[in-house]
Amino acid sequence: MKNTTITSPKGFLAAGVHCGIKSSGRPDLALLVCPCGAKAAAVFTTNKIVSAAVIVSRQHVKSAMISAVVVNSGNANACTGKLGIKNAIKMCVQTACSLNAIRNTKYTGRKVLVASTGIIGHQLPMKKVVDGILKAAAKVSDSQATGSSFTQAIMTTDTKPKNAVTHVEIQGKKITIAGTTKGAGMIGPNMATTLCFITTDAVISKGLLAKALKAAIGESLNKLTVDGHQSTNDTAIILASALAGNRPIVRTDKQYAKFSRALAGVCDNLARQMALDAEGATRMFKVIVKGAATKAEAAKAARAVANYDLVKCAIHGGDPNWGRIICAVGSVGVKLNPKKLSCRINDITVFKAGSPRKFDVKKASRAILQTEHTITVDLGAGRHSDFCYGCDLSREYVTINADYHT
Amino acid sequence: MKNTTITSPKGFLAAGVHCGIKSSGRPDLALLVCPCGAKAAAVFTTNKIVSAAVIVSRQHVKSAMISAVVVNSGNANACTGKLGIKNAIKMCVQTACSLNAIRNTKYTGRKVLVASTGIIGHQLPMKKVVDGILKAAAKVSDSQATGSSFTQAIMTTDTKPKNAVTHVEIQGKKITIAGTTKGAGMIGPNMATTLCFITTDAVISKGLLAKALKAAIGESLNKLTVDGHQSTNDTAIILASALAGNRPIVRTDKQYAKFSRALAGVCDNLARQMALDAEGATRMFKVIVKGAATKAEAAKAARAVANYDLVKCAIHGGDPNWGRIICAVGSVGVKLNPKKLSCRINDITVFKAGSPRKFDVKKASRAILQTEHTITVDLGAGRHSDFCYGCDLSREYVTINADYHT
Repeated sequence: MKNTTITSPKGFLAAGVHCGIKSSGRPDLALLVCPCGAKAAAVFTTNKIVSAAVIVSRQHVKSAMISAVVVNSGNANACTGKLGIKNAIKMCVQTACSLNAIRNTKYTGRKVLVASTGIIGHQLPMKKVVDGILKAAAKVSDSQATGSSFTQAIMTTDTKPKNAVTHVEIQGKKITIAGTTKGAGMIGPNMATTLCFITTDAVISKGLLAKALKAAIGESLNKLTVDGHQSTNDTAIILASALAGNRPIVRTDKQYAKFSRALAGVCDNLARQMALDAEGATRMFKVIVKGAATKAEAAKAARAVANYDLVKCAIHGGDPNWGRIICAVGSVGVKLNPKKLSCRINDITVFKAGSPRKFDVKKASRAILQTEHTITVDLGAGRHSDFCYGCDLSREYVTINADYHT
Repeated sequence: MKNTTITSPKGFLAAGVHCGIKSSGRPDLALLVCPCGAKAAAVFTTNKIVSAAVIVSRQHVKSAMISAVVVNSGNANACTGKLGIKNAIKMCVQTACSLNAIRNTKYTGRKVLVASTGIIGHQLPMKKVVDGILKAAAKVSDSQATGSSFTQAIMTTDTKPKNAVTHVEIQGKKITIAGTTKGAGMIGPNMATTLCFITTDAVISKGLLAKALKAAIGESLNKLTVDGHQSTNDTAIILASALAGNRPIVRTDKQYAKFSRALAGVCDNLARQMALDAEGATRMFKVIVKGAATKAEAAKAARAVANYDLVKCAIHGGDPNWGRIICAVGSVGVKLNPKKLSCRINDITVFKAGSPRKFDVKKASRAILQTEHTITVDLGAGRHSDFCYGCDLSREYVTINADYHT
C-alpha cells in the first residue's frame, strides 16, 4: 500500500502511543524523528495567551536543524505558568535523551520541537509523558503504520485521521510533500491554525521553507473557520529532510513556484478535511466575497459569513436563508454598495442589485445539502476578492462542547 | 391589577393584532399611539445593511412630535429594495389615515415611526398589513390588556413577553417609565439592539431624551450578546408624552440624573429578561473585565468571552472550563499581562497571576448552573473595567435556527 502519511517523504520516522493523558485509552503521544536532521519552519497562533509548547517551540525552531518533534494530545499545557514551561522543555530534553539511548544519536533538547493540544489550565502528568516518550522512541519507523499512529495520537475530537500527500518533479527528481493535521473545534485562526505537521524531502533553504509555509497556510488552514475561535496552541510545522537530491530550490526559480503550489495543495486538502470533520459538522461551504474595496475587506466579509452562527444553522437545516448572509456582511464594517449588493448560492442568484430575486427554493436547498457548496457575495464596492471555508453548526457541536468536562 | 406595560405612563394607547404575516396565527402587528403627541428619540443598528423601516424611521424621528409607532413582526422588510422603502412609508401613512378615520385626528405619515422584525429578503404582504393597521387602530386603548397585546405582537422566537416599569419622583411629580422589548436571537448589537419601545410621561426636551436613551441603551441592551449578531433592524425608541406635569428636566439638573438612572434601570431589566429568554438559553451570565488599559478594551474582552461559543457551551454543561475564558480574552488583541492575568467564577478563584488554582469544581459547577453567575477576568494591564451579559448555547438554539425556514 502506498504510504500516504508523514513518513512518506524520505528521511522521517514516526510513532504514536498511549501514555495515559487521555482517560479513554486512545493514543495521546506522538513522535516524529528526522535521523539526518531537517530544516524547519513554523507558524504559530497569534492569541496573546499561548501554550508553553508554543513558547518553547518558537525558540527551538530557530535552530539550524531539527532532530525531532514531540506532540501530546489531551492536555494543552496552556495557562500553566512556569511549571508549564519547565514541562514543555522537559518534553524536548526527554525526547532527545530517549532517542539517544535507543538509537545512539546525539540529539539535544533545543533541536526538538514540541506541540500540545487538549484542555487548557491543567499541568501535564509528566511521569506518564516521560514514559510515553520512551515508549514511542522505541517504536519509531518509516512505515505507513507508524505514520498513521502519529496522526491517531494527535487527534482530539476528530472522528477521522487527516493526511494528504503529493509528489512534484523538480529538476528530474521526485519530491514528496506529506501533511497531517488535527481538528476539530476552536478553529478560527489568524496566521496559523490547529496542529499541522508537514514533511518533505525537498532540498530548500530554511528561509524559503518559511516563506512557502506562510503562503500555503495563509490560503488554506487560515481560510477555515469552525467556530471563529483562535486556539492558544495553533502550530503548523514543516520539516525538510533534503534527501530528494534536487538542486536546492531558489527564490527566483520556477521550481519554487512549483514547490509552493504543491505545498499549498497539501494544505488546502487538509483544510477541507478539517472542515468536513469539524465538531458536529455534516457539511462544509466556501464563501467567496467579490467586489470588495480591498483584499483584507473581502477576507473579513467572507470570514464574517462563515462564522455567523445563524448562517451555519441555516446551512445545517438546508435552508437558503440568504438574508442572514447579507446581514453578516453588513455587520463587519466593510465598504459595500447596498444598491449593487448581490448574492448567489452555487449558481443560483438569490439577491441582485439590492433586491431579492425569485429562485427555485427546492433547488437551492438541494445545493446546500450537498457535502460542499459555494456562497458568492458581490459587495459592489471594488475589485478585490477573497474566500473562507466554513461548516454547519449542529446540535452535536453543542453536545461535544457542553459535555467535554474539565 | 397594576399596569406594567407601555400604556402605563400617561398619554399612550396601544394595540396588537394578527394580520396574517405569521402563518402561526399569532399577533404580528402592533400600534402605539400618543394622542397628545410625544417627543421622540431613537437609536438604530449600525449594520450597513438596514431594514427599510430603519431608513424611514431615521427620517421620521427628526419630527418635533411623534403621533404613533407601527410595528410588524414575522417580516424584517430588509434587503427588499425600493419596494421595501415604499412599503415602510405606506405603513406610516396608513397608520395616520386609519387613526384619523377612526379617532378624528389629523396625523401625517411623517409623524409615525415604523419598525419591523422577522425574516430578511421577503416583501411585506401589504394588503394584510393595511387591513391589520385598520384593525389595530380600532382597538387602541390605555389598558394593561392592550399594552400586553402590543408586546405579544412584536415577539418572534421569544417564549415570554418582556415588560418593565418604574416610577421616579421628580419635583413632587410621579413620573412613569415603561418599556417592552423582543428577543431573542441575532443579538450582538452596537449602538442599539433588537426592537425596544419605551414610554414615559416625563416633561423633557428631545435632545435630553436622546442623550438619556443613548446612555441607558449603552449600559444595558448594548451590553448583551446572544450570538454576536447585529441585526439589520435593531431599533430602540423612547417617547415622552410630557403629561406628568413636572417642570421640564434640564441637563444641569439633578433630576436629569434621577431620570437617567430610572431609565437605565428599565433598560437593564429588559436586557436581563432578553438574556434569560434568548433562543435556547437556559441561563445567563455577566462577564466583568477589570484591569484593562482602556474601557473600550475592557468592553471588547468582556464581549469576546460572552460571544465565545465554547464558553457558552461549557456554561450550558455546567462546566467550569475557565481555559476557554482565558483563550477568548487572549484572542481579541487587547493589552494584557499574562503574569498577572486572573479569573474568578462568582467568588471562586480558578486562575491567578498566570497560573491555575486548585478550586472546588463541584461548587463552581453549581454556581454556573444557577440562573445567573458572574465571570470576572483581571487583565492586569490597567485600571479600566466594563461588562457584558451573555447566555448559554444549547442544542435548542441550533434547532430553532436550523428549522426557521425561509
